Amino acid sequence: MNKDDLASIVTKITNIPWNARNVERVLSALLVSSNFWDIVSFSFEPLPAVAAVLRTLAEEGIVSFSELGVELTDRGRRFIEREKISPLHSHACPRCEGRTVVIDEFKEAFDKFAKIQLDRPEAIRKFDQGYVTPDTTFARIALADSRGDLRGKKALVLGDDDLVGIALGLTGLVEDIVVLELDERIIDFEQGVASQYSLPLKALKHDLRKPLPEELLGNFDVFFCDPPETVEALDAFVGRGVVGLKGLGGAGYFGVTHAESSFYKWRLLEMALLQRGLVISDIITDFNVYMNWEYVDEMLAWDLAPVKQPPHRNWYKSSMIRVEVVEKVEVPNEDLTDRDIYNDPESSTT
Amino acid sequence: MNKDDLASIVTKITNIPWNARNVERVLSALLVSSNFWDIVSFSFEPLPAVAAVLRTLAEEGIVSFSELGVELTDRGRRFIEREKISPLHSHACPRCEGRTVVIDEFKEAFDKFAKIQLDRPEAIRKFDQGYVTPDTTFARIALADSRGDLRGKKALVLGDDDLVGIALGLTGLVEDIVVLELDERIIDFEQGVASQYSLPLKALKHDLRKPLPEELLGNFDVFFCDPPETVEALDAFVGRGVVGLKGLGGAGYFGVTHAESSFYKWRLLEMALLQRGLVISDIITDFNVYMNWEYVDEMLAWDLAPVKQPPHRNWYKSSMIRVEVVEKVEVPNEDLTDRDIYNDPESSTT
Repeated sequence: MNKDDLASIVTKITNIPWNARNVERVLSALLVSSNFWDIVSFSFEPLPAVAAVLRTLAEEGIVSFSELGVELTDRGRRFIEREKISPLHSHACPRCEGRTVVIDEFKEAFDKFAKIQLDRPEAIRKFDQGYVTPDTTFARIALADSRGDLRGKKALVLGDDDLVGIALGLTGLVEDIVVLELDERIIDFEQGVASQYSLPLKALKHDLRKPLPEELLGNFDVFFCDPPETVEALDAFVGRGVVGLKGLGGAGYFGVTHAESSFYKWRLLEMALLQRGLVISDIITDFNVYMNWEYVDEMLAWDLAPVKQPPHRNWYKSSMIRVEVVEKVEVPNEDLTDRDIYNDPESSTT
Repeated sequence: MNKDDLASIVTKITNIPWNARNVERVLSALLVSSNFWDIVSFSFEPLPAVAAVLRTLAEEGIVSFSELGVELTDRGRRFIEREKISPLHSHACPRCEGRTVVIDEFKEAFDKFAKIQLDRPEAIRKFDQGYVTPDTTFARIALADSRGDLRGKKALVLGDDDLVGIALGLTGLVEDIVVLELDERIIDFEQGVASQYSLPLKALKHDLRKPLPEELLGNFDVFFCDPPETVEALDAFVGRGVVGLKGLGGAGYFGVTHAESSFYKWRLLEMALLQRGLVISDIITDFNVYMNWEYVDEMLAWDLAPVKQPPHRNWYKSSMIRVEVVEKVEVPNEDLTDRDIYNDPESSTT
């Protein structure tokens, strides 16, 4: 059994296109943590594939599972040596945590935000929620400001359990913020904060599977969203952002994970973005760090996990992607309510 | 005259597809520096277009040129206010300079490198050279190591005035390094250093316009290059790297600038990469910082510059791009010696 064999087995079990390099990444991650969620995080591979390869390695006597997590056996150590696997070694900047930007200049707004968000609605499964750390929310703003996408501009936030709308409002950089959200708890929360702090923010109830409302089309300079990661859903959600933009030169920011999207799928996602007339100007790995959410044991991910241990740090991360419209292409704004666009073989946290 | 008018004029003069947002970026850059090279750098726009818009703005009485550089006139200040242009505001991390990674763990190798490189051959125009800072060279290694692309692996360096081969050798991470280079000064230098420091490095004379030698095909885990930026040349040079890789899961690193490539062209470059079976996993803006080179006044860029002032800091930067092979696609390995693949309307530093 070598890495190629393992990759074929994983593809057979999960339908996720994998090669020896993908297997190697899980093994490299396994050499730095025994916690399943860490291994997913450090491997940059989709959770269902990581689970499948670990189960296969266990059947081969290469790893064993216990309440301590995933451990190499003696046989496993010989396997690692024979296959020349090195532990993953990160050189991420300790200051910005690999995000490229710092949020120092937003200290005042950040401190306000940190207090305000203590009363935020908890993430619930019904809306596929899971929010990022306050540092992440502000890093998004620092990045967008560094790209000239905020000052004096109009921002559209499509789904906002991350409270980007409030953070944008508190920094005072943008002129106008519209938040579209299905969860009335978030709408009420953001409207309340907006009126208390006099933020130029309107939060409207809207199901993003439905077309973007007529009056919002062609209105914004920049959008933020955190789309589901099937090719169809990402294309549709980013598409909603694009039709909200004024046109050429408009920018969008969103996250894409490795935990739910293989490198193979990433390429298809990128093709879809380019076909919408967008250029990808930035891809910053592990930029978005999500707080561990409460419904972890209700997810498919929990069933798939070969060890039922809780995560012991924030393990779910995503790359920050910035796109910009460089070619005018007709982007559809269809109703998707009746289509199942949320699941593919790589998803596990919905 | 508004931003849209200016964009149309620039496109007419330069043949570079531009819109109001591109104009805005130059104006935002102009509000933070009067040095032409800085304005190019901070605007993230192609130098010929920046030069054209500044000349047009001068004709309109919005800016004026002097030995101090590019300055707004009174009329210009009113224009900036009317068009609601804000100064560019960077939040780049001061610790990693926006690179995401730090090089602390390579201190010993870096100190050796810093001494060794004092005797490096100077950049010459004949080979379209211009090398990056030692910090940049090592940051590339920190990034590639963070992605698991180095330890125990074989690296191919296609063109190496940046001395990536030597840096790789000094860190001791990779098993084997092959450098292909046309400039015999660099070959001799790298061979000399390799034998003095016992590095696993071979530097071979090779013209990258010619097909990759048979014996190198399918041999490497990772490649580094710094390709010319016409769509055709980038595709060809990255293609040389790809045919040198063992196959699926192989990775490549290279820089793409904004100074020579508009956002419009970036999208075409990205399409070419995806079509080669590659996924783009990282795009890190301003990662690569080039030392100012000596032949600055021999370049087209100098002729284009509306003010003949020297750069006063390292202005030429590029985004670091990492790609990975996720689909096996036949990549051509043709002879390009007789084709002019180096110039397009956006190039100015060759």
